[in-house]
Amino acid sequence: MEQPHAPVAAEAGAGAAAAGDGYTIRPLELSDLSKGFCELLAQLSPSPPLSEEAFRARFAELAALGADHLVLVAEEAATDRLTAAGAVLVERKFIRRCGLVGHLEDVVVDAAARGRGLGERLVRRLVEHARGRGCYKVILNCTAELKGFYAKCGFEEKNVQMGLYF
Amino acid sequence: MEQPHAPVAAEAGAGAAAAGDGYTIRPLELSDLSKGFCELLAQLSPSPPLSEEAFRARFAELAALGADHLVLVAEEAATDRLTAAGAVLVERKFIRRCGLVGHLEDVVVDAAARGRGLGERLVRRLVEHARGRGCYKVILNCTAELKGFYAKCGFEEKNVQMGLYF
Repeated sequence: MEQPHAPVAAEAGAGAAAAGDGYTIRPLELSDLSKGFCELLAQLSPSPPLSEEAFRARFAELAALGADHLVLVAEEAATDRLTAAGAVLVERKFIRRCGLVGHLEDVVVDAAARGRGLGERLVRRLVEHARGRGCYKVILNCTAELKGFYAKCGFEEKNVQMGLYF
Repeated sequence: MEQPHAPVAAEAGAGAAAAGDGYTIRPLELSDLSKGFCELLAQLSPSPPLSEEAFRARFAELAALGADHLVLVAEEAATDRLTAAGAVLVERKFIRRCGLVGHLEDVVVDAAARGRGLGERLVRRLVEHARGRGCYKVILNCTAELKGFYAKCGFEEKNVQMGLYF
């Protein structure tokens, strides 16, 4: 999927950051429903268009989690459209002295915007958020084809993901 | 790890359920700190003993998540000690019409209590909680050695888990 052209330094913090190449990486906003958010997610997994009401309700639920949940998006300045998205959910555990774990979820880069390092920059921002929140690790699940991309982002293969679908 | 002797029917619901063989599977309680909870978790991952204060604080944080988080434990009637534990965290997504995903976490069975089907019963209870909460799937990460155990619980191998440790 991702073929970043060159390593990009991690960008810390969750605020908006100009990418320097026409993209801004920033937290998801309510206005993003009309900037192609669902169409972008549909490139990752079945994501029918959401109603304004459904989007706002889920947005509010996630906002209530505070720093334990963050969705970042990349917006293209020239078009005002979203070209990448990803999320991190912080899990509170009892193991490791009530440790925290970041779960990286739903990372997607628009097919037309791949190969520019956007995905890596977005992932590194999400990882930095988890680090700042005090997580001892960040984990993710991906297909075998994406192992190389996440290795470039600093991840190592650890275990097997299993699933049970209802 | 687990070598259940025979298939055990799933037990629905999150309330206490007599296991019929001297074990009760029920939600974690505040009194469980003195019933070997940390010692049990230490068989899974480094888990130094928690102070009463730290345990209560994390317990309250998780309780505030309501049905989006559940820790189940198995208690042995003869000893009042915990012999198994596991958790499920419900993640709220935007994909799949604001779908919900259950993350199965920190499943452990006391070394002396393995081979009695306790682990499978506990996992099936956690899965049923996620199903009742409306999740479209439950996922977990495990070592290759545990794939057979989770296959018996109804899981299939899906992807690769990667991790980044701070």
